Amino acid sequence: MHPDRIREIIERVSSGEVSVDQALEALKSLPFEDMGFAVVDHHRQLRSGFPEVIYCEGKTPEQVVAIARRILEAGSDLLATRAGEQVSRALEKVFPEAVFHQQARIVSVKRGGRSPEMRGPVAVVCAGTSDIPVAEEAAVTAELLGNTVVRIFDVGVAGLHRLLARHRDLAGAAVIIVVAGMEGALASVVGGLVDCPVIAVPTSVGYGASFNGLAALLAMLNSCASGVTVVNIDNGFGAGYAASVINRVR
Amino acid sequence: MHPDRIREIIERVSSGEVSVDQALEALKSLPFEDMGFAVVDHHRQLRSGFPEVIYCEGKTPEQVVAIARRILEAGSDLLATRAGEQVSRALEKVFPEAVFHQQARIVSVKRGGRSPEMRGPVAVVCAGTSDIPVAEEAAVTAELLGNTVVRIFDVGVAGLHRLLARHRDLAGAAVIIVVAGMEGALASVVGGLVDCPVIAVPTSVGYGASFNGLAALLAMLNSCASGVTVVNIDNGFGAGYAASVINRVR
Amino acid sequence: MHPDRIREIIERVSSGEVSVDQALEALKSLPFEDMGFAVVDHHRQLRSGFPEVIYCEGKTPEQVVAIARRILEAGSDLLATRAGEQVSRALEKVFPEAVFHQQARIVSVKRGGRSPEMRGPVAVVCAGTSDIPVAEEAAVTAELLGNTVVRIFDVGVAGLHRLLARHRDLAGAAVIIVVAGMEGALASVVGGLVDCPVIAVPTSVGYGASFNGLAALLAMLNSCASGVTVVNIDNGFGAGYAASVINRVR
Amino acid sequence: MHPDRIREIIERVSSGEVSVDQALEALKSLPFEDMGFAVVDHHRQLRSGFPEVIYCEGKTPEQVVAIARRILEAGSDLLATRAGEQVSRALEKVFPEAVFHQQARIVSVKRGGRSPEMRGPVAVVCAGTSDIPVAEEAAVTAELLGNTVVRIFDVGVAGLHRLLARHRDLAGAAVIIVVAGMEGALASVVGGLVDCPVIAVPTSVGYGASFNGLAALLAMLNSCASGVTVVNIDNGFGAGYAASVINRVR
Amino acid sequence: MHPDRIREIIERVSSGEVSVDQALEALKSLPFEDMGFAVVDHHRQLRSGFPEVIYCEGKTPEQVVAIARRILEAGSDLLATRAGEQVSRALEKVFPEAVFHQQARIVSVKRGGRSPEMRGPVAVVCAGTSDIPVAEEAAVTAELLGNTVVRIFDVGVAGLHRLLARHRDLAGAAVIIVVAGMEGALASVVGGLVDCPVIAVPTSVGYGASFNGLAALLAMLNSCASGVTVVNIDNGFGAGYAASVINRVR
Amino acid sequence: MHPDRIREIIERVSSGEVSVDQALEALKSLPFEDMGFAVVDHHRQLRSGFPEVIYCEGKTPEQVVAIARRILEAGSDLLATRAGEQVSRALEKVFPEAVFHQQARIVSVKRGGRSPEMRGPVAVVCAGTSDIPVAEEAAVTAELLGNTVVRIFDVGVAGLHRLLARHRDLAGAAVIIVVAGMEGALASVVGGLVDCPVIAVPTSVGYGASFNGLAALLAMLNSCASGVTVVNIDNGFGAGYAASVINRVR
Amino acid sequence: MHPDRIREIIERVSSGEVSVDQALEALKSLPFEDMGFAVVDHHRQLRSGFPEVIYCEGKTPEQVVAIARRILEAGSDLLATRAGEQVSRALEKVFPEAVFHQQARIVSVKRGGRSPEMRGPVAVVCAGTSDIPVAEEAAVTAELLGNTVVRIFDVGVAGLHRLLARHRDLAGAAVIIVVAGMEGALASVVGGLVDCPVIAVPTSVGYGASFNGLAALLAMLNSCASGVTVVNIDNGFGAGYAASVINRVR
Amino acid sequence: MHPDRIREIIERVSSGEVSVDQALEALKSLPFEDMGFAVVDHHRQLRSGFPEVIYCEGKTPEQVVAIARRILEAGSDLLATRAGEQVSRALEKVFPEAVFHQQARIVSVKRGGRSPEMRGPVAVVCAGTSDIPVAEEAAVTAELLGNTVVRIFDVGVAGLHRLLARHRDLAGAAVIIVVAGMEGALASVVGGLVDCPVIAVPTSVGYGASFNGLAALLAMLNSCASGVTVVNIDNGFGAGYAASVINRVR
Repeated sequence: MHPDRIREIIERVSSGEVSVDQALEALKSLPFEDMGFAVVDHHRQLRSGFPEVIYCEGKTPEQVVAIARRILEAGSDLLATRAGEQVSRALEKVFPEAVFHQQARIVSVKRGGRSPEMRGPVAVVCAGTSDIPVAEEAAVTAELLGNTVVRIFDVGVAGLHRLLARHRDLAGAAVIIVVAGMEGALASVVGGLVDCPVIAVPTSVGYGASFNGLAALLAMLNSCASGVTVVNIDNGFGAGYAASVINRVR
Repeated sequence: MHPDRIREIIERVSSGEVSVDQALEALKSLPFEDMGFAVVDHHRQLRSGFPEVIYCEGKTPEQVVAIARRILEAGSDLLATRAGEQVSRALEKVFPEAVFHQQARIVSVKRGGRSPEMRGPVAVVCAGTSDIPVAEEAAVTAELLGNTVVRIFDVGVAGLHRLLARHRDLAGAAVIIVVAGMEGALASVVGGLVDCPVIAVPTSVGYGASFNGLAALLAMLNSCASGVTVVNIDNGFGAGYAASVINRVR
Repeated sequence: MHPDRIREIIERVSSGEVSVDQALEALKSLPFEDMGFAVVDHHRQLRSGFPEVIYCEGKTPEQVVAIARRILEAGSDLLATRAGEQVSRALEKVFPEAVFHQQARIVSVKRGGRSPEMRGPVAVVCAGTSDIPVAEEAAVTAELLGNTVVRIFDVGVAGLHRLLARHRDLAGAAVIIVVAGMEGALASVVGGLVDCPVIAVPTSVGYGASFNGLAALLAMLNSCASGVTVVNIDNGFGAGYAASVINRVR
Repeated sequence: MHPDRIREIIERVSSGEVSVDQALEALKSLPFEDMGFAVVDHHRQLRSGFPEVIYCEGKTPEQVVAIARRILEAGSDLLATRAGEQVSRALEKVFPEAVFHQQARIVSVKRGGRSPEMRGPVAVVCAGTSDIPVAEEAAVTAELLGNTVVRIFDVGVAGLHRLLARHRDLAGAAVIIVVAGMEGALASVVGGLVDCPVIAVPTSVGYGASFNGLAALLAMLNSCASGVTVVNIDNGFGAGYAASVINRVR
Repeated sequence: MHPDRIREIIERVSSGEVSVDQALEALKSLPFEDMGFAVVDHHRQLRSGFPEVIYCEGKTPEQVVAIARRILEAGSDLLATRAGEQVSRALEKVFPEAVFHQQARIVSVKRGGRSPEMRGPVAVVCAGTSDIPVAEEAAVTAELLGNTVVRIFDVGVAGLHRLLARHRDLAGAAVIIVVAGMEGALASVVGGLVDCPVIAVPTSVGYGASFNGLAALLAMLNSCASGVTVVNIDNGFGAGYAASVINRVR
Repeated sequence: MHPDRIREIIERVSSGEVSVDQALEALKSLPFEDMGFAVVDHHRQLRSGFPEVIYCEGKTPEQVVAIARRILEAGSDLLATRAGEQVSRALEKVFPEAVFHQQARIVSVKRGGRSPEMRGPVAVVCAGTSDIPVAEEAAVTAELLGNTVVRIFDVGVAGLHRLLARHRDLAGAAVIIVVAGMEGALASVVGGLVDCPVIAVPTSVGYGASFNGLAALLAMLNSCASGVTVVNIDNGFGAGYAASVINRVR
Repeated sequence: MHPDRIREIIERVSSGEVSVDQALEALKSLPFEDMGFAVVDHHRQLRSGFPEVIYCEGKTPEQVVAIARRILEAGSDLLATRAGEQVSRALEKVFPEAVFHQQARIVSVKRGGRSPEMRGPVAVVCAGTSDIPVAEEAAVTAELLGNTVVRIFDVGVAGLHRLLARHRDLAGAAVIIVVAGMEGALASVVGGLVDCPVIAVPTSVGYGASFNGLAALLAMLNSCASGVTVVNIDNGFGAGYAASVINRVR
Repeated sequence: MHPDRIREIIERVSSGEVSVDQALEALKSLPFEDMGFAVVDHHRQLRSGFPEVIYCEGKTPEQVVAIARRILEAGSDLLATRAGEQVSRALEKVFPEAVFHQQARIVSVKRGGRSPEMRGPVAVVCAGTSDIPVAEEAAVTAELLGNTVVRIFDVGVAGLHRLLARHRDLAGAAVIIVVAGMEGALASVVGGLVDCPVIAVPTSVGYGASFNGLAALLAMLNSCASGVTVVNIDNGFGAGYAASVINRVR
């Protein structure tokens, strides 16, 4: 509710068009709707042109379907992350246009929402084949949010030439997402090669002193390359979302 | 060195303008300069219009001055972070135009480099007064890299109205840096209010189970607000730099 | 055994009503029963009007039934926490009046004990739908201990307006339990909005650097909102119990 | 701002007593003051009758004095925690009625505010003499917030009879604060003896595998006594404040 | 091989009774058997009268049976710890006199070895019913090594009177083993009540911030009661063994 | 207070020798003195013949002197641990017979108490010269509590022959204390060589991944040698005390 | 591509033998192949005579077979680590000469590549029978890379004589790999006995405070024996590979 | 003592040349000197041609001088690590030929011992200028143990071309030591470029989530490059020593 709208109400009270009680009623929801923050949540998604997101882990297929129904009825596109076989089947059954991106564990439903304009391609780089599910989560998220995505997979730092062979793709990216487990060194190496924003995603790939991704997480937080920021372990969605927010033309 | 440059050399060998030995000499640095990565490091800084950076911690004033001299002679602007009293005095003595940003512990020297064009203001938000040094490191870094910075300080989540009172500044920012110690909740709250990129900086402010910033770091990595990325504890510079990379018009 | 009771015994010895041996026998259990702490445990529960509690994890259904039988025969009400399907079926079979609160994983048996008088409603607030089992454990515990409970679920800080929309419920609560996983920021935000006691329950909801609830636990311990206290990760029962102790009229 | 106040403004617009612009001006701060959350922060303190609090660590004496001045001019009482010698002297110089509670590291200034009514005494129990500074922080905080405080110091569980000797004081308390370092067992033992709310404060007292209070913190979070809640390591103030919130008659 | 035995050999060489080669052969195993440390391992067990021990975890039933056979053929008694159903059945099949102590997960085979003389009873104290398997491992180990064992189970510190009710058993013990999970406070409380050696065994019983026994482990290491020593988490066998070594008359 | 004493009081009430009030007065301290636990604390020390102990860390010299005075006036010997130069001088000034054991940081005052009888010598073994202060704390404690102590210093496992050269001293010990930092392997090696009780003391000696003694602590808790128990990092006193309790003839 | 090769190309351009375009084409792959680092990856393996390696964990049998096919077609030998039953069967089906080393979980395929010359035998020492799988991974790796391997198993430090009995094998080794879980003391003891390179492999064998191998890892990193280096927990392959690199004659 | 020597003694007893008592005396030291391990420690150092080492941290200058005197009198060269100004001055005063390597914090004294033959140069690579002290400790250690050392400093992975520019030095090394703090990525990158042994040294350089070198340590342990082994944080000496053991011709 804009200040103009408040002025209007009060002016109409002043002019007698509107009773005190009516005005009070209209102002009741003011604390929230007038904060200018009503865009938050539901509205923000719609405005940004991004689909709404359901994090499926810890929800039953029924719960996911119910939430999906509400979202889609509101006219938003849908993006369901961490969706296993059961959830994807449940969604596909109810929403025939649902698409299951298996490696990324994402189900998407497109309802015609126009994607926001983006500045350039998002490159998703990953170190090893075991990191691909997380990389795909990032890549598919970025694609569904409107980005063109370039995949640069299996280019770990122990074979530097494989990474360097893709330098043109790296140099052409507007945003780069680096996905790596084990020692997570790839984030620093990529970060040193480019001058666009780099988002690092540690993965839980590894064993022993990898401590389920802690080693890669710490390495990425301590990256000697300026401009690298980090998201949670295995949070491919978060990286894809953040890249889209950065990449969106506003 | 562009492929065109290689072709030119070889054509001049072919035409006899250049001897084999001269060509070989010219190609010697090829493996690196021709990678297209010669922009890395020194060159990247110059090209981006960003000043070069010295991290002063663990360096003697003499070392810092020596590195600074080399950078400035190369025509770059200078930004020296984690600079204490001693280092700042040493720099000011040799480079009279040096400016010491005390709270931010940054010394800057401007040599006329034109700042890159930026998209919009960077908002630096911090939770408590003890977080201000880190927030200032982020803010001064962003300013020296060419951004207009809006400071929104002391707006911790325990007094939510203080934060909400600044919602226009938040909504107007192109990038937001959130600096918070203790439980680091501010990153999630701000992340939920806006739809621009948010970079979270945990600080080591706190005691006991804050474990020198670990509590805030973990909280920020687990933020329930999509699109929040994180840098190292107390890494105001890193946040300011990453914000600038995101904000720069390319 | 009150001092009065000791005096009475000794007076009766003095008057010859009671022999030395009889007195000695009566005083034998003195070290414990006379400490004034005999109310501890069994007695305390009865006196407080609270049902007795069995923590079922790590106990066989047979063990739980056996303990339950003893408690119920002693005239106490029963509250069995962390009760899975097996345990609940075993209890329902033997005690037909047993009620299984599935989400809360609690089985309760009411034997007519009058609940203690409470000061006001207990609000149970949770951040996400995945936190609901723990929130329900807290809510059902509080209800079975005699409180009126107001549930305020799925009001995470990334959508602040949903929380603010329930401010009347928050303001009206005598005690508030805040249940949140991930970054646990909700405790600080709620703690800053109200002036009643707030008990924070971190949950193991999250992944990666949530480290099974450690992130939320540390965040809550470092809350910038004064007056917030914390219980163990996923300890909904503990929060419900503590809230009841605080809320009870004595 | 109460709804009544809004109605009044609108009625006066309606009656012509107040112009539209005046009304608008009066309503300008509405989003926050009218949220019903205006009690937060400054207002909450005043309403509750509690003094305002400055956490001095990481602030210069000048900063503390400046904040103190603003608080006292607003008519509130003052409580400055973690105040060292320098800060206390600076405050005493400017505010002659300031009182320095040395062991508790608290400076208080009383400006005549009436303390809120409390339900009963707060008992502050501590395990060893080294825990006394934290215990005193809790005790002095509770006293300055209006409680009668009973100190039960140096009653560690290795000498159980010393604790049991004070059972009357424990039984008579409305709220108990248990302060202990090392293994923190005192919280469980006290929690098992009483049926009032128990707030546990781990301290950093200890060495080696105490890990600066981590051992005591974990022990207290895992207390086998129901109804024990925990605050941050060494957070005597937090415990004193939480106890006061619990103990206050509303 | 005692020095006397070496002297004897050499004297017999000197007297011609034994040839140089025979002497050399006899001395061949000298570096180890003559170290005075030949008691180590196999010999130590026999000498001490203790049975030999197999730690079954990570071994196949076949491996356990094979090792058991070798031990029993050497005339030693046998004690197999961490023995599951499969292992116990495999042993019972081959060695009909094998006894399976189910709760303790121990299989023992007695071959007539005389137990060493002990000083007094070993008391095994545990906090909750979930700690009983570890307590039984300690108790059965101690029994099989020759001790009289007094079990004092389910006497957690939250119900202090239950523990105090057993004070005569505690006072009469030559060594006490305290088994507790959660906050592990029982070790300190028992340690403060007695003046015999106390061995504390943390268990992995608990959840959340118990971190699989870490909380109890740290608490026990930080015990404020002098004279308490600690073994690994869930190491009932180690405690039973150590108690036996302490208790053995030499 | 023995049951006989209670009987006596009651009999004298019965016979009229003592009034009801006098009896009540005499029985007043009953809950504690009659528990049979009156040996705890003060009394236990006296009975065991062990001196009383003050842990000086975190206490002012004045506090230490005051406590010492009370202890010595009660006729007990005194042992003050973690005593720095200041504390030792303060004690020496007031109690001329005080002895300062500098490396062990212990001050002792002997008031003629007869030491309890011990079974055999206590061997204190340490790995490196940097471990000597903790080893001395253990050794001096054991000596002051009445043991004969054999010091076996600087026998780390990297030079195994140095340790083996002392095997007679090891074999002759009644109890062995092993003090080691870094990887703490000495405890396992010694534990495998002997069949008497072994108490392991990890020290904070080391750097980097020693994490202030954590590496040694974990190693000792995981010792593959049965019968090794562990005390807190750097807790030489605790080891010396526990060894004395084990070694004392009762 | 050697500098000589570049010179040759340019000389042929100079002499007209080669056209500019042909030269450019030949130089195209220069940035990587000419780095002198083209040996990396594929080439390095071939040159060193070592087989190529597939880490199977997290790969489907189909993926492993596909990668294996490519490697073997390139003429390299193959070594597939962390291969379970499924993977081994899949490989054996396609490559009949495949050999499955079950305990080591390695599948190898020999295609006639000549092993590099080695300096001496590699000794693989392990502490307990549960460490054998990791020890076998190291041993089989070393064997397949061309080493003669001496296995010294089950020689934990608690039975030192068993280790000392193998001193000739230790003394004769060119490189020693020490595999141990629990307290990992074996690395220090072996490291102190020999003067060849020692590679320590912590294993996750143990329980409780072993924290899945952390105890052994920290112990090995803190080894008091100079010259010991460490690989990741359970990383038998890494140790076998590093030993081979050290042992290879170049 | 070789078996031959034992045979000789016994033969001389047999022939009457040597008395029984003389033989016994000669055999007395047998358990250790005859183990074939008498080379350990003192002897091993002499045999290997390596100087003896004193770790100075935690030792007084007097202690260091005393140990140094003993070593030098035994004819060994000396290497004193972690030597501060005080220690170095004390050594230089007594041993005029002592050399203080300031950055490496090493004092060396050469007494003419001939260095062992080495296979090739040792390259010491470090990431940043703050890592130089540790790198110098490694380099000076390697030099004093007889290696030719190539220093490749300040070649962090964020500026990959600086590292690649030194590829000839890397390729020519017999052993490489990689020293890096922060995220420690350099070890993996170097490990992927070369096929000689690589020893990684994490440093405590960094802040925040570097946790004093933990991040670099974990990264190096999880290196994706095969053949990398790791030493303790900041353990330059250990790396230099291990490199020498690997590099020595035997």
